Amino acid sequence: MYEETPVAAQRLIVERDVFGHNDALARKNRSFLTGRRIVALNLMSSPGSGKTTLLERTISQLGCGDCGGGEFVFCVIEGDQQTANDAVRIKQTGAPVVQVNTGDGCHLDAGMVARAIDALDPREGVFLMIENVGNLVCPAMFDLGETARVVIISVTEGEDKPLKYPNAFASADLCVITKTDLLPYLDLDLNVLRDNVRTVNPRIEIVETSSKSDDEAWHAWLRRAHERAVAR
Amino acid sequence: MYEETPVAAQRLIVERDVFGHNDALARKNRSFLTGRRIVALNLMSSPGSGKTTLLERTISQLGCGDCGGGEFVFCVIEGDQQTANDAVRIKQTGAPVVQVNTGDGCHLDAGMVARAIDALDPREGVFLMIENVGNLVCPAMFDLGETARVVIISVTEGEDKPLKYPNAFASADLCVITKTDLLPYLDLDLNVLRDNVRTVNPRIEIVETSSKSDDEAWHAWLRRAHERAVAR
Repeated sequence: MYEETPVAAQRLIVERDVFGHNDALARKNRSFLTGRRIVALNLMSSPGSGKTTLLERTISQLGCGDCGGGEFVFCVIEGDQQTANDAVRIKQTGAPVVQVNTGDGCHLDAGMVARAIDALDPREGVFLMIENVGNLVCPAMFDLGETARVVIISVTEGEDKPLKYPNAFASADLCVITKTDLLPYLDLDLNVLRDNVRTVNPRIEIVETSSKSDDEAWHAWLRRAHERAVAR
Repeated sequence: MYEETPVAAQRLIVERDVFGHNDALARKNRSFLTGRRIVALNLMSSPGSGKTTLLERTISQLGCGDCGGGEFVFCVIEGDQQTANDAVRIKQTGAPVVQVNTGDGCHLDAGMVARAIDALDPREGVFLMIENVGNLVCPAMFDLGETARVVIISVTEGEDKPLKYPNAFASADLCVITKTDLLPYLDLDLNVLRDNVRTVNPRIEIVETSSKSDDEAWHAWLRRAHERAVAR
């Protein structure tokens, strides 16, 4: 049904400018982050998939803020249209956090992340967790300078979402399937969801988590990502 | 954290042009739809909130396609980035349906809806259900010429989403809370979710549904909307 129209064409040209400007800032971010051997993860999902809960759990299990007592050090950038609710939640874990409110904006961009990195000044070898705006569509279009992309989907969202909203899945290195403790109460076939993720992106890794089970596969992936960053 | 930058300013100016063009087309749609006493509902939500399932159930309970045998006649516009999966599902209910694939686009616009209306040619007094792209952020910015806006949120998405993503809730006439059959398995306080919806929009109506209970409050709202359209 969708056809190119004069409006769409006009928008395309402007988007190219916006993307070009964003990509230049993303390259600067990447250069800074690589130089400090920082693992920067761009976490993308719909609202309510459990990104903040996964972050809280991960920081409390594997890390601490800046205390040096955990296996890793985490710092966090929280993206939301409104409120500092998520930053307040993360702050309770002890991790340094910056909230970015995008207002009407539907995604983080590399400039917002650059300013948040300035404010956080993350030190060598830490994890920088970037929780993007809850939106399965737009964030995938914007490079932030991240080390890797993680797409998160909860089992309550249905098997077909990777096929209907493929960009986030196609550009991600890892897919985290959350809320698997709800599977007994849902009409969802986990194998079909996994197959649909792999149809869109055959090279993607997939791990499953829930707040009521261990997160070993997710932790193992984080350790490998950290090893790669330190070995650079 | 977020500050205006030259990029944001440039984008704002262009968006004003895009919105102006969209609003002109939306006014044409509204004029056509009002003339035919059609109730056009713009259904907005995150992916996986249960929009398509609610539509399937509503059409099978209250309507039929073009057969004239049900209480109402429904026709449907399905918006997704990719696939015709949802149109295939709706087609099985017997309702006329047009699938709009937006590609990289994150929302329906009035031009897409105008072309879909041309293709459907809905007759006097029907319901035109417009299932927007699964995205709680961008669709709220674009008037489609609809009679009313319905924002849908499932109980699995968490209580705080209306506060963090207020635009869709602020501009909606009705909020449908779905999947209430999962409440026993979730740490969610339905009263807090309702309060948060009303904080953003004190005038909004709220109904609750689940695939395992009746949908009387939703049906009653549809009947009132239809009465108002016919009385115009």
